[in-house]
Amino acid sequence: MWVTMASKKRGKNSWEDLNFIKRKTKKRKTEEKLKKADSISKDKEFIVNEEKNTNETCTLSIAVPGSILDNAQSPELRTYLAGQLARAACIYEVDEIIVFNDAGEEGNAYISGTKHNNKFKSCEQLAIILQYLECPQYLRKHLFPLHNSLKYAGLLNPLDAPHHLRKEDKFQFREGVVLTLPPKSGKGSFVDVGLSKPVIVDKLLEPYFRVTVKLHQNIYECTNKIYGTIVSPHTPKRETGTYWGYTIRLAKSFSEVLTKSSFSSGYDLTIGTSDKGISIDETNLKNKPFKHCLILFGGVQGLEFALENDDTLNVEDVSLLFDYYINTCPKQACRTIRTEEAVLITLAELRTKLNHQHMYNKL
Amino acid sequence: MWVTMASKKRGKNSWEDLNFIKRKTKKRKTEEKLKKADSISKDKEFIVNEEKNTNETCTLSIAVPGSILDNAQSPELRTYLAGQLARAACIYEVDEIIVFNDAGEEGNAYISGTKHNNKFKSCEQLAIILQYLECPQYLRKHLFPLHNSLKYAGLLNPLDAPHHLRKEDKFQFREGVVLTLPPKSGKGSFVDVGLSKPVIVDKLLEPYFRVTVKLHQNIYECTNKIYGTIVSPHTPKRETGTYWGYTIRLAKSFSEVLTKSSFSSGYDLTIGTSDKGISIDETNLKNKPFKHCLILFGGVQGLEFALENDDTLNVEDVSLLFDYYINTCPKQACRTIRTEEAVLITLAELRTKLNHQHMYNKL
Ligand SMILES: C[S@@+](CC[C@H](N)C(=O)[O-])C[C@H]1O[C@@H](n2cnc3c(N)ncnc32)[C@H](O)[C@@H]1O
Ligand SMILES: C[S@@+](CC[C@H](N)C(=O)[O-])C[C@H]1O[C@@H](n2cnc3c(N)ncnc32)[C@H](O)[C@@H]1O
Repeated sequence: MWVTMASKKRGKNSWEDLNFIKRKTKKRKTEEKLKKADSISKDKEFIVNEEKNTNETCTLSIAVPGSILDNAQSPELRTYLAGQLARAACIYEVDEIIVFNDAGEEGNAYISGTKHNNKFKSCEQLAIILQYLECPQYLRKHLFPLHNSLKYAGLLNPLDAPHHLRKEDKFQFREGVVLTLPPKSGKGSFVDVGLSKPVIVDKLLEPYFRVTVKLHQNIYECTNKIYGTIVSPHTPKRETGTYWGYTIRLAKSFSEVLTKSSFSSGYDLTIGTSDKGISIDETNLKNKPFKHCLILFGGVQGLEFALENDDTLNVEDVSLLFDYYINTCPKQACRTIRTEEAVLITLAELRTKLNHQHMYNKL
Repeated sequence: MWVTMASKKRGKNSWEDLNFIKRKTKKRKTEEKLKKADSISKDKEFIVNEEKNTNETCTLSIAVPGSILDNAQSPELRTYLAGQLARAACIYEVDEIIVFNDAGEEGNAYISGTKHNNKFKSCEQLAIILQYLECPQYLRKHLFPLHNSLKYAGLLNPLDAPHHLRKEDKFQFREGVVLTLPPKSGKGSFVDVGLSKPVIVDKLLEPYFRVTVKLHQNIYECTNKIYGTIVSPHTPKRETGTYWGYTIRLAKSFSEVLTKSSFSSGYDLTIGTSDKGISIDETNLKNKPFKHCLILFGGVQGLEFALENDDTLNVEDVSLLFDYYINTCPKQACRTIRTEEAVLITLAELRTKLNHQHMYNKL
């Protein structure tokens, strides 16, 4: 019943693509906010010590230009290509996907919000499909109304990510959405976490907000009410080591990929990829321990094209923008490797070659 | 003119899928035959010493079940999936792709040729698309008449393989097709090799035969007749190190993949892949130098399913069938990796880990 209510209400909202994306991105940065939110219940049962184990895991980000969708040969294949990226990212535990505009000012029309040109539409569509796939199936009906970018979503292969839990899966964390169902007096909001009934959380939150919930331990035994605590989306990975999906960032230019990091300390390892880069076999990435690694991929015309189209970057040679500029398929027999292939190949090649620096401080 | 003639004639032939596949496979094994073919001209100009450099390169084969196409969500995506495999194979210089039936007797209907069931149809379609993509564009019109399996071929990404030469590319070898144009008396057949005019070769051959031609050195200077010598399809790779495409083999059961090798000595390194295999990080493949390596991939239900459906294999544990049974993505965050992803990942992971044993004897 509560599920139906929520979807109905949601259906009435007007769709604003970018706000939508921003809202969801915001969600992924809400740790601070959540701490400030009203803690309305101190019921012992569902106070979970979120700070118990706060070793920050290090992160892997990838950046891909939205324009790669324009290289697909049909609307169905645009969608499928986005799905290939999502799966590659998930297989290799990518924490952040940055979708950037590599087509210059002309492609930046979305700043003003008045004009939507193709280049930007591709960034937007790629971002929306990536978000859609990252979202557990049971939340999609709440969070993703019908949208043109998702017209062929039925063709997408599921992500099969660890946070895409089925009803019967037992795991202490679950992704959820705040329901419109009015909270009981003195209690927190109802959240749909994909179980047979909603969870009552420790905070009063705005409906349709996507949240991460730590469930009361005995949840699978209790037949009555289910309680949970709102935690940061980083908590599951931090506490259990389990991959918990990726966030999306839209960058309106190539330079923003590098400068507008989601991490306060920025990226401390940046890797550009190209068939003109230095062979991965001659690169020792272990020399450079990192906390936040960013791997950048180009579109049909490579990262040089993105550089050419960025007015704020004053370097001649694109390789100077990164700590490393590498060729991850040194003997490729095909003349060109497509971006979606390069992402999978590069992540496979780098799997054992990076020097992850785990941190034991709080975010 | 000669191009048009050839395509017209070809159009009249009835299409027999399997014969077609067999014919093309045969072509790839014609070295012996070619040696016996009439050498009608001893014209010095185009006698090329084919045996000059006969170091046999070692080979890489992959085996994939045709049933993976049934896991695609639309006819367009069936085609696209086949294209993904072709590109992965080409990027990593795979010499042979074996398409096998992993569905047991029921899927073997093609032996009698009377009944075509779905399982086999998928093997057939996968084989045809793989062949189509491997074939240089300029030969497709001669060799691939309209066919249902190729209905969505327009959606396929080009292979961009080194033997897919454009008219203006200068390379001493070219793939060609024997034309119906009647040979001049005392001269060999006319062959279309994708240049502005046909090449006269040193042998009289059946029209529509796909051949590899070594061009007379001064071809790009001569304005008059172009001459060439028919060579084995292995010669370009052997003499120049350039990847020259893959062959296709159809195996009607899982066991045939292993037993009916195209190489007289069989495969001397076999690798099964599975998420239940031993981690690639704990496997030292360098211990086993090889001449002919075979990597096997399963379908939706893995290689165990293929074993279950094979009546001739009497082992309980599929891993016993191979020299190695490996997991090439030991920390995969997605519950399952799709076969087409596993092929790219595995080839990337194995790139530097195999111990190729080059041979300096003749094939
Ligand atoms: C079609 S390619 C772009 C053109 C050009 N071949 C290049 O790599 O710059 C698309 C993207 O795939 C990635 N890529 C292609 N080949 C690669 C290789 N050998 N090594 C690393 N990345 C590669 C790069 O990110 C590149 O920008
Ligand atoms: C959907 S999986 C089959 C089911 C099962 N997950 C498995 O690997 O046996 C399809 C195929 O992809 C390949 N594959 C999947 N995950 C793999 C991994 N981690 N390592 C190596 N190969 C894998 C195997 O060839 C497998 O048969």
